[in-house]
This record gives sequence, C-alpha cells and structure tokens, in this order.
Amino acid sequence: MKDVLDDAGLAPSAVYVAYYGEDVHLSGDPRKVAISRGIPIEKAIDEWTLLAWEMNGDPLPAQHGFPLRLVAPGFPASASGKWLTRLWVRDRVHDGPKMGGYSYRVPRHPVEPGTDVPESDMKIIEAMPVKSILTRPSTGVEHPVSEALSLRGHAWCGDGPVAAMHVSSDFGATWLEAELKAPRNPFAWQGFNASIRFPTTGHYEVWARATDHAGRQQPMVIPGWNPRGYLNNAMHRIAIRVV
Amino acid sequence: MKDVLDDAGLAPSAVYVAYYGEDVHLSGDPRKVAISRGIPIEKAIDEWTLLAWEMNGDPLPAQHGFPLRLVAPGFPASASGKWLTRLWVRDRVHDGPKMGGYSYRVPRHPVEPGTDVPESDMKIIEAMPVKSILTRPSTGVEHPVSEALSLRGHAWCGDGPVAAMHVSSDFGATWLEAELKAPRNPFAWQGFNASIRFPTTGHYEVWARATDHAGRQQPMVIPGWNPRGYLNNAMHRIAIRVV
Repeated sequence: MKDVLDDAGLAPSAVYVAYYGEDVHLSGDPRKVAISRGIPIEKAIDEWTLLAWEMNGDPLPAQHGFPLRLVAPGFPASASGKWLTRLWVRDRVHDGPKMGGYSYRVPRHPVEPGTDVPESDMKIIEAMPVKSILTRPSTGVEHPVSEALSLRGHAWCGDGPVAAMHVSSDFGATWLEAELKAPRNPFAWQGFNASIRFPTTGHYEVWARATDHAGRQQPMVIPGWNPRGYLNNAMHRIAIRVV
Repeated sequence: MKDVLDDAGLAPSAVYVAYYGEDVHLSGDPRKVAISRGIPIEKAIDEWTLLAWEMNGDPLPAQHGFPLRLVAPGFPASASGKWLTRLWVRDRVHDGPKMGGYSYRVPRHPVEPGTDVPESDMKIIEAMPVKSILTRPSTGVEHPVSEALSLRGHAWCGDGPVAAMHVSSDFGATWLEAELKAPRNPFAWQGFNASIRFPTTGHYEVWARATDHAGRQQPMVIPGWNPRGYLNNAMHRIAIRVV
C-alpha cells in the first residue's frame, strides 16, 4: 500500500485512505454502495499494510478478494476491503457506508449494558484486542487420566506481539505457562503448545489466556457491553472428559 | 475444644467429633434431629477450633448460639454448631442429619453441569476456597472522574492466609495489587485497600481477586458445577458510575 501511495504522491492534508470494491448492495442496485470503509493514513503507510493480489504464490482466490484486496492487519476485517475498484485518499475521516452510526464503532466511554448511546458518542474500532483460540483438541473429547494432554492453538493481538500464553484446568485458580512461538511477522498468529495432566477422572474445562505486549490479559467474561457486541476477547475454553 | 477433648480423654480410635444442639426440626417434633454435623478429629484438636461462650467479652448472643457453640474456622458454617447440647467423639465419620447425601457435599471428581451424581461419589466439604468481598463503596455509586476512588474489603481462605489481593477496572485486562493486611489470627479476615483512577467518565465495573497461600486465585466465573451449588468463590464485582 505504501508503495502505491508514494507513487501517487500524498498531499500533506491526507488523513484517511478509503476503499471501494465490487461488493453488491443488498438491494441489487449497482448504483448503491454496500460498504466503503478505510484506515487512518498512519495505518495505510505502515509497511505491513498491503494491497494483495497473490496468496502463497497463486492469484488471490475469489473469496479472498480477487483481483486485489486491502490487508490492514490487526484492524477489524471490514477494514480489509475485497474486490477493490478504487482507493480514495481523503482529507478527513472517511464517511462511506459502514463507517458511521453503530457499524464497527463502540462507545467512547464504557456504558451500562443496554444503554441507548448517541451516535456522536461512538468511535471507530482500530486495533483489535489480544485474543487466542485452542485448536487442539476439540471440545468434548475423551482423554485418559494416565496421560498428559497436549494442547495447541494460536494467539494474536492487533497492535503488537502476544507476550505470554497460559492455560488453566481449574477455572483459573492456577495457570500454567504455555510455550509461545515468535510471530513470523508483527501481525502473524503466534502458535502455542502446552501439556497438562488431570488429577482425577471427570469433566474438566481448559481455559486459554493470552497476555499482550502491554500486559493486558484476556478476561474470562465478555468485557464492556457495546451496542453491536464488538471486541469480545473473552478466553476460549474447551471441555475434556477425563476417563 | 482441644482442652475439653484432652480433659475427657481421646481414645486412639477417635476419628470425628459430632455436635448436637437445640435446632428445632422443621416438623416441630422434639424427638427429631434437624442437623448434627461434625469435624474430623485433626480439625477438632486444632488450637483455633473453639467452643465459644463469649464474644467480645459478653455472653454469646442467642443468634450466635447461646450458651455454647462450636467454631470450626475455615469450614462451612454448618460445621460450627450452635446451641450445643452434646459432643460425640466418634470412631468413624459422623453420619448425623446433613452429613450425607447432597448436604454440604460435592462430587469427588469434577462433573458435567447437571449430572445426576450418585451419593457414593460425593465427598464432605472441609476447608473453603479463597474468597473476598469489596465492602466500600457499594455497587452503583457515582464517583467524580477527577478523583481517585478508595476501595476496601476483606479476604479470607479456609486453609491458610491470603497471599495477595488485586483489583481490576477493565474486566481483568490489567490488575492493580491492593494493600493487604496480615490476619489477626490464622483464620481471620484480612482487610485490603486500594486506590484506583478511571481514565474517562462512564460505567465501570471493579473486580476484586484474592490469591491464597498456595497461589490459587478466585475465578471470574462460577468454578465447577455441583448439585447444590457449593464452593462458588467467583470474584465480587461492583459497578461505579464515573461522572
């Protein structure tokens, strides 16, 4: 993205880069724009913000935005527009469809659950909070009590690396640090592995908790209500039947 | 308690000390025993297990068990029988009313929520897990954003001291260590104090988390289902309206 913007030449007044693409409006009317979002200029000129036409050496698949998509890593996926037809460098925060109102926006200040928040009190979501998932085993599996259980998964954070990963099988009373791999680039998923033993047979839950570069942890519950339910980075948990 | 047991003389076969008191059976029938629980002999001879007839220099109030009650600190309150009429040193685990079945008992092994657990798989609850409450301010208060908020409360644990106390106002993303006082005796509540600042106005929640002497923390959710819902040591939280 930065190469294209440099080549086009950025005016000092540049504030935001907006995208337009081939998304079809729900009405079917080709004159209507379904979605046109964008990113702040600082994010647009970041070296990890891409205009992608290939993936793993092949042309971008249709479902990923062929022939060209924006990749704004760490931001909500709606910022990474697909099937691009136009970029528009703006001198103000972009105001295309799904940039205002309650779309991809949260209250500026924490509000009581269910609050009717005025649109003027909403702000655009930028970097996403730290999150992780357990990818192995799947929830509900049986596991013999005599053997250690190997766990693995991925963790990520929208504005920097994940610093640590912990797992618990006693609802968070105690935590075991997992082995966390370095990211392949600053916005890549980071793999993690852990091995846990269960003291008895029975029904256990395994919880996984990532901690980001600033020491912020995933909560066990949904953090802070907002009108559309964005930014839920509560821990992932799986059930294990130890036999 | 130990003085009384020593004076009476304990047989080597002593396993449990049971109590009987003036609790009236729900039927009103004086021949029926409403509750008769007890404690293991090791707990009974612990120096902090008491037969109490006074509180703060006055006779024990009626609601606290006048003229005499058992105090088995750290155990479920039902072990601390009131209005005592008899102690019975037993050569087996006591089997009075509310000692068996699902009363003050939990599954030996963790079970799936809603499981129909056989009575033979239940075990008696002894030491209670670490817990804490915020006593000031009350939930729902207004607080000016320009000022730090003073928090205070108490923490306790059934089998040793509380080691640390933390508070969070961002759903557990970050934690601030509170000042935790030493207990006045090994089973006393430990006071804690903290002072927090809020970055903006809005609706905040403050969560309080105790960590015990063995590094076990309170969870944000109810830990491990059991038929009667015992042992819920989830963190206490309060709402603060920052204006």
